[in-house]
Amino acid sequence: MQIVDTIAGTRQAIRDTRAAHPDGTLGLVPTMGALHAGHLSLIDRARRENPIVAASIFVNPLQFGPNEDLAKYPRTFADDCAQLERAGVDLLFAPTRAEMYPRGAAVTTTTPSTTVDPGPIANRLDGVSRPGHFIGVATVVAKLFHILQPDRAYFGQKDAAQLAILRQMVRDLDIPVDLIACPIVRDHDGLALSSRNRYLTPDERAQALILPRTLDLIAQRIAAGERRSEPLIAAGRALLEQHPEVVLDYLTLVDPDTLLPVPEASPGTLVAIAAKVGTTRLIDNFLLE
Amino acid sequence: MQIVDTIAGTRQAIRDTRAAHPDGTLGLVPTMGALHAGHLSLIDRARRENPIVAASIFVNPLQFGPNEDLAKYPRTFADDCAQLERAGVDLLFAPTRAEMYPRGAAVTTTTPSTTVDPGPIANRLDGVSRPGHFIGVATVVAKLFHILQPDRAYFGQKDAAQLAILRQMVRDLDIPVDLIACPIVRDHDGLALSSRNRYLTPDERAQALILPRTLDLIAQRIAAGERRSEPLIAAGRALLEQHPEVVLDYLTLVDPDTLLPVPEASPGTLVAIAAKVGTTRLIDNFLLE
Repeated sequence: MQIVDTIAGTRQAIRDTRAAHPDGTLGLVPTMGALHAGHLSLIDRARRENPIVAASIFVNPLQFGPNEDLAKYPRTFADDCAQLERAGVDLLFAPTRAEMYPRGAAVTTTTPSTTVDPGPIANRLDGVSRPGHFIGVATVVAKLFHILQPDRAYFGQKDAAQLAILRQMVRDLDIPVDLIACPIVRDHDGLALSSRNRYLTPDERAQALILPRTLDLIAQRIAAGERRSEPLIAAGRALLEQHPEVVLDYLTLVDPDTLLPVPEASPGTLVAIAAKVGTTRLIDNFLLE
Repeated sequence: MQIVDTIAGTRQAIRDTRAAHPDGTLGLVPTMGALHAGHLSLIDRARRENPIVAASIFVNPLQFGPNEDLAKYPRTFADDCAQLERAGVDLLFAPTRAEMYPRGAAVTTTTPSTTVDPGPIANRLDGVSRPGHFIGVATVVAKLFHILQPDRAYFGQKDAAQLAILRQMVRDLDIPVDLIACPIVRDHDGLALSSRNRYLTPDERAQALILPRTLDLIAQRIAAGERRSEPLIAAGRALLEQHPEVVLDYLTLVDPDTLLPVPEASPGTLVAIAAKVGTTRLIDNFLLE
């Protein structure tokens, strides 16, 4: 695996690799490192579908708010590299912050540089409690797409709002890349894998299971015939209220493309939850079949 | 010359053309049609520097304000095609509004889709009197770059603020394209060529000459040793006051990259003017050597 930390070096490496695979597609898996089996499932899928697989590791400051966990976000670079190498990644782009934002990065709307603005959708779901987050996500992913020019890019369904925003971006700006959404990977007990699970104490880890359990309850109620969002959410909230140590951010049924609430569940509806367990914000979701 | 009005058809045409010129670069000249000798100078330059030359004609609604001249903007498609054909353009992308904005286009900051936001620079020079204009410009040019994927793109120096904003966009978003700025082309009497000159009555056409004359006066004063922006602008304004039929929007000395005012002229300084002649808004500028 070739590891490159400059934009120019990455462009050159891509040119060389493409020259060696003239008709081969390139699959990209963008990450913030601290890799887990969820990321590896994206790599595996990319590996199956593309002769050339690239990954990126970059903890993007532009998508963190001023009071968020940018400084303490887990960084496990050596271990990440070993995992990517074993998974068969050809090229890893791992830039410094100065390489990606030579003129500085700010998360405000008065940021002194060009950003990609998803519009009102950026203020839905996680965007409510994380203002500016999705501008930062859209901007860095646009940059990565321009630098690596993948044919396909792989993202986890766990970040459902991120996926909706990136799908909208690719569509609205005509970016020539196919976005591939991959299923959530869960631990043996049902907790969705997340780099942020590393923050959890053993007690918090146990408490965090209320997120998938709340989603399971709603799935069961839907299977039993309830379609109306209001009683479904009320049932979920009632379960959560028995766990006051978990502070709900949102529990909602939305259209998976617009992220706008729907009055009734129907095939494709996104059921999504976000909550704080201790100081750790976790998210989870499922798509109705 | 191949004329294509769909995004998919253009991507296919580019693939085919590139396959026929495996190492050839593609030069793009984006226009809003109503072509004049200024546009043709861009085509000529692109033709000299690239085996493949593409042009686009699209009157971009996203960059017009609600009270601007979108509806009456000159449309001379048949004549434009004949000129592009003669100039040796290989491919013309001429989409409909629905092809470029299938979900509608609005010029407000609450536009229901993804835009490219240049940040504070978008509110300088023409951005002051044309709020949202440069968001519309950046967004449509990003789309055109994603659709046609040129190696080089050619823009006229007449739209100096547009150039600064696009240079910033390409730099900040790492878009793999070289922007080439081409000199202003002027009529025999010194008026900068513009599609909007077609709006001028013969009287207004004569009045409009005060724009290049004001710039000439400032250039002379600089050549004579005056460097301070304040007296230079005052001299220009004094000349303009003798022509009350011309309503000044701005007359300013700015940094050509940031578009921020500079206290003194120095090599590279942009001296720029915008004014209304009748109902027609005209711009002109020069870069200090």
